[in-house]
Amino acid sequence: MFWFRNLSKFSTTTTLPRSKTTLLSPRFTFLISRFTTATETPVSGSTGLAPHAGLAPTKPHEKPRVVVLGTGWAGCRLMKGLDTAIYDIVCVSPRNHMVFTPLLASTCVGTLEFRSVAEPIARIQPAISREPGSYFFLANCTGVDVDKHEVQCETVTEGTQALDPWKFSIAYDKLVIALGAQPTTFGIHGVLEHAIFLREVYHAQEIRRKLLLNLMMSDVPGIGEEEKKRLLHCVVVGGGPTGVEFSGELSDFIMRDVRQRYSHVKDYIHVTLIEANEILSSFDVRLRRYATKQLTKSGVRLVRGIVKDVDDQKIILNDGTEVPYGLLVWSTGVGPSSVVSSWDLPKSPGGRIGIDEWLRVPSVQDVYAIGDCSGFVESTGKPILPALAQVAERQGKYLASLLNKVGKANGGRANSAIDIELGDPFVYKHLGSMATVGSYKALVDLRESKEGKGVALAGFVSWFIWRSAYLTRVISWRNRFYVAINWATTFVFGRDISRI
Amino acid sequence: MFWFRNLSKFSTTTTLPRSKTTLLSPRFTFLISRFTTATETPVSGSTGLAPHAGLAPTKPHEKPRVVVLGTGWAGCRLMKGLDTAIYDIVCVSPRNHMVFTPLLASTCVGTLEFRSVAEPIARIQPAISREPGSYFFLANCTGVDVDKHEVQCETVTEGTQALDPWKFSIAYDKLVIALGAQPTTFGIHGVLEHAIFLREVYHAQEIRRKLLLNLMMSDVPGIGEEEKKRLLHCVVVGGGPTGVEFSGELSDFIMRDVRQRYSHVKDYIHVTLIEANEILSSFDVRLRRYATKQLTKSGVRLVRGIVKDVDDQKIILNDGTEVPYGLLVWSTGVGPSSVVSSWDLPKSPGGRIGIDEWLRVPSVQDVYAIGDCSGFVESTGKPILPALAQVAERQGKYLASLLNKVGKANGGRANSAIDIELGDPFVYKHLGSMATVGSYKALVDLRESKEGKGVALAGFVSWFIWRSAYLTRVISWRNRFYVAINWATTFVFGRDISRI
Repeated sequence: MFWFRNLSKFSTTTTLPRSKTTLLSPRFTFLISRFTTATETPVSGSTGLAPHAGLAPTKPHEKPRVVVLGTGWAGCRLMKGLDTAIYDIVCVSPRNHMVFTPLLASTCVGTLEFRSVAEPIARIQPAISREPGSYFFLANCTGVDVDKHEVQCETVTEGTQALDPWKFSIAYDKLVIALGAQPTTFGIHGVLEHAIFLREVYHAQEIRRKLLLNLMMSDVPGIGEEEKKRLLHCVVVGGGPTGVEFSGELSDFIMRDVRQRYSHVKDYIHVTLIEANEILSSFDVRLRRYATKQLTKSGVRLVRGIVKDVDDQKIILNDGTEVPYGLLVWSTGVGPSSVVSSWDLPKSPGGRIGIDEWLRVPSVQDVYAIGDCSGFVESTGKPILPALAQVAERQGKYLASLLNKVGKANGGRANSAIDIELGDPFVYKHLGSMATVGSYKALVDLRESKEGKGVALAGFVSWFIWRSAYLTRVISWRNRFYVAINWATTFVFGRDISRI
Repeated sequence: MFWFRNLSKFSTTTTLPRSKTTLLSPRFTFLISRFTTATETPVSGSTGLAPHAGLAPTKPHEKPRVVVLGTGWAGCRLMKGLDTAIYDIVCVSPRNHMVFTPLLASTCVGTLEFRSVAEPIARIQPAISREPGSYFFLANCTGVDVDKHEVQCETVTEGTQALDPWKFSIAYDKLVIALGAQPTTFGIHGVLEHAIFLREVYHAQEIRRKLLLNLMMSDVPGIGEEEKKRLLHCVVVGGGPTGVEFSGELSDFIMRDVRQRYSHVKDYIHVTLIEANEILSSFDVRLRRYATKQLTKSGVRLVRGIVKDVDDQKIILNDGTEVPYGLLVWSTGVGPSSVVSSWDLPKSPGGRIGIDEWLRVPSVQDVYAIGDCSGFVESTGKPILPALAQVAERQGKYLASLLNKVGKANGGRANSAIDIELGDPFVYKHLGSMATVGSYKALVDLRESKEGKGVALAGFVSWFIWRSAYLTRVISWRNRFYVAINWATTFVFGRDISRI
């Protein structure tokens, strides 16, 4: 506190030799003195952190603690539903917001703004920032000790000079693992280095910056025709909903905005969608045909092929065809993340964390897993659920009410829920799928399963349903409002092309 | 074009052995064939760029070419006003947008969004992206050859893997240098490494990310009291309008949003404003006193001091006082940029590019300089104008009509304007200054000069004038609309705290 005392010295004494460091305000003295009341413990090292710091097990006078790992659909829906009168919530995640993933593709070309699809955790569950025992930690979970009821964490600092990452541990009464999955690369060389995924806001930012950079680079005097075509060739690998929606958004952007704002290069830009099997394979066959027709009409080239290798300027297909690209987006689905795989927990077929019908991890106490990182263990006889937002969201909601029920029955503490009746197990009912294909057209598939019967819509009405559904689903009123405003201004003024 | 021909081969022949690379769409053949009509020149190297590429001098059947260096207030106002029926415009700048600098401080804490204060050049002057002879190049100007009437440029690629920066040249008929200035550091060690300036959108983004990171880091279990205080100590060096407005915005953010959303650490966060002389020295003395009172009331510590050295976690003042900080923002004014200083052009006192009363660079043909990079040469007997947006904006407007006049009199070509009557010289009339100090309070100083008399207002009415003035000044209707929407949602929902 030397520096503060030093400053206050100048403000209270006048006998000292006059220095350049004098104060403008008489109120300053008060502020200083209020500030110096804090303890003056010596700081060791640059972090001021005690070794083995952390949150100790909860005491009887404290609320039991639910530790939630992850801030995706599953974790956020759970936190929203947890009764904060019963539990303290501690959330650990490398991002302090939830991403509204179905609208992420729209942000890559400026149809929506990044912040319109990101919801801060503090807005989803305000207790996190207000309750004395609830916290959000910007950190990665590195390990779980199920016997000690403790998780190990390490802060995320992103190479900021003044901060070293440091480790701490958190004791839990209940642990919910909702860490999601990671994009699959099928071990193909070069994907991690050269392709961009589309899972986080920073991915969308990178795509937007690169797309605008390539548009401007291709206009530079003296650049060859081949290079111009390469720079403006956008390749999307993976024909699932994300790949299809991104391709549709890109072609909308090209048809409306590039033609107007980059008219020098408008004939050079093209989109190619590469898929090994069929696009939108989970959708009804008529919808698939409709999507194929629509995308082709908007100028998206659909190529059936398998990627063998990815270079910094071209991809090589299985048959040897070389495809030069300027932008490569990879959306071939997700698989278990490496950190989750490395933990010594029961596994489901396919390597996800195994769960029973009540979403508990079998054979350990007080640990639950939800969302893309979890899958039913074989003994339940249930199939692994698809890695969809609606599965994660439904599991989060179910587990919140389960934990609230357990907490009300005095089972909130560690190792205290053994004899509590849990009620009905979790049952998933598919509500249908939606995807937009650009040009104000979308697909709505309301069948309960791939083989089932039901309503399947395509076209403008579906697109309207798609927009309305998302508008009511975006969590906060603030973001609902901004998504509507973004859509309206895109319609009136076109997309924003400032590269910031 | 091998890969495209290869792809099209599969779509038109069926006798070939079936491959994984087949096409989904019959329309694809057409697309391919249209695409292959382009020339098939061999590409040399990775850029496909001919050596010494560039834009050659304009031919008699082409419009004369105005090359504008820079996209600040001066350059953008000029481009907006140029008659595109007379001239082709070529703009060279490392950013494709103009930044509405007076509102930049508001974006650091989320009162406004980044894109609301960034205006794409294509929206300011649509001809840039539509006219065949007009261009925007994302590049830095590295040199000027006034004899050859040519500028040398190098593309901005920001370390993108697949792109090497490359050089090209542009011949001009008229050249307008509007490169602005760069922040002054007074040669103080560590400023460039550890402090953040507040001149560009990416500065504001860095401040926002760092502020939110520090807020979250300070909440991590086990962190010491000293370190918590350091992380949450925001230091602003420089008490000009930018420093004062940023301090005001920060204290608003702390008082409203931090208290609600980071209640665990709310008592640790503080703002200190360090200024060697007086804050807002160009304003009326009563307004200065009012600003001092307001800032102090909002908890901003005002310290008079001179910074001697900047370390990664603390700054050292002239008298030896050490001030630990978590965020350091540097806004001590601007000086001539190093690239401009290195050019062999006439200079004004203080090292700016010298100009006469018609904003021409004396002794060279067809070169003009406007905005912060320019200053009247001594022989004009006029003082150097302050580095203000309104000076730059007025100069841009004046030069646009001057060049339009010259162009109409057939003086648009290189070396053809020697005998044309230029009319009235540029005269600057100061319209007054405005600054906000937070808490819905602002200062409006409508005196014509520092010594002059005139209206000086402070308080809520001024704040309302401040907002209204900026709202009508933000250039496009899209951004006016977004600024109004941002202000409204900040008022209703608070500031956005997602760290994306």
